[in-house]
Amino acid sequence: MDRNQNDDRLSRQMEFLLECDKSKLIGRQNYLADGSRKENDAEHAWHLAMMTFLLAEYASESIDVLKTVEMVLVHDLVEIDAGDTYAYDAQGNSTKRARELAAAERLFGLLLDDQREKLRALWDEFEAVSTPEARFAAAMDHIQPLMLNAASHGKSWLEHGVAVSAILRRNEKTPKGSEALWDYAKGQYLDPSVEAGYIVDDRAQG
Amino acid sequence: MDRNQNDDRLSRQMEFLLECDKSKLIGRQNYLADGSRKENDAEHAWHLAMMTFLLAEYASESIDVLKTVEMVLVHDLVEIDAGDTYAYDAQGNSTKRARELAAAERLFGLLLDDQREKLRALWDEFEAVSTPEARFAAAMDHIQPLMLNAASHGKSWLEHGVAVSAILRRNEKTPKGSEALWDYAKGQYLDPSVEAGYIVDDRAQG
Repeated sequence: MDRNQNDDRLSRQMEFLLECDKSKLIGRQNYLADGSRKENDAEHAWHLAMMTFLLAEYASESIDVLKTVEMVLVHDLVEIDAGDTYAYDAQGNSTKRARELAAAERLFGLLLDDQREKLRALWDEFEAVSTPEARFAAAMDHIQPLMLNAASHGKSWLEHGVAVSAILRRNEKTPKGSEALWDYAKGQYLDPSVEAGYIVDDRAQG
Repeated sequence: MDRNQNDDRLSRQMEFLLECDKSKLIGRQNYLADGSRKENDAEHAWHLAMMTFLLAEYASESIDVLKTVEMVLVHDLVEIDAGDTYAYDAQGNSTKRARELAAAERLFGLLLDDQREKLRALWDEFEAVSTPEARFAAAMDHIQPLMLNAASHGKSWLEHGVAVSAILRRNEKTPKGSEALWDYAKGQYLDPSVEAGYIVDDRAQG
């Protein structure tokens, strides 16, 4: 590459990284552990990255830790344009895919060829839950809000009247990412929260 | 390890990860790019991790990307106990080291042997700026607030009356992490911000 191409590459990388700052303004539905306010996407991604590198030993299949960390760091970037869709919002989820695909085109398109393709591939893989890394990343993405919701005495579960059947359905594949961590999350976060009345117990009808 | 030891290990890891949530409540001095509010430590660490994996190609020396990402993810955890000390606060910086050492003992001590030692070593290495990874991490840690301050029209520089000589002194070793990124940051963020009056220009007296 000549000097101009190098300058363009770096400018586009820095423009993309400045655009990423907007993730700090995308609110999620779950609260921080102390219940003081809701979490945002950048904080959530940081927490998943910490979980990934500290808990990788519990992955159900062998994973590439760097690739998994990169995947969780970028997995919600599309929400800069598409917004956060709550896991238990059926209507929002019906239009989510189209909104996120358009966002991926624009956002990853800020980068040049190799990095645009790399980030798009990481996001596609995360969305398809098609590899050991994606299965582990999805498990972290599902277990982290269980941890925070349990710590905040079920604050967002109570606000949305979430039922245990919906949480169990959403976590059907979580053991494929990590059986040990799903067992822990169920025993330490989910079951006690049902017991405490933070989650609607509809299991008898299911 | 028997079953009980395994359970204890995982419980301590999850307790540590829940404690990490408090990083989201530790405020920094610089604002987000849009100037709407100040940044917190978890958001900052996420942004540095994104920068590290997208910009590693510009490192002045060859770096281990996963190790560098892990380092930036954990570099500010001690502030959960010790608080954020502004880079240009001389009095706060005189007591910073003792406060952070005590915090490192408590926080990393939540983990068991291997991970306690790993995180402590990552933090010590970051603090000592003693390796290629630490020099690159330090460069990201210094360049990211330049990017955000410039984008927010110098909001926190103006609030603190920061002088260009102080910024240049703080960044003396930034080129050792990445010469190319320091050149870019100086040309795109620092010089135009001095020109615009966001930073006190004391270079004639220096």
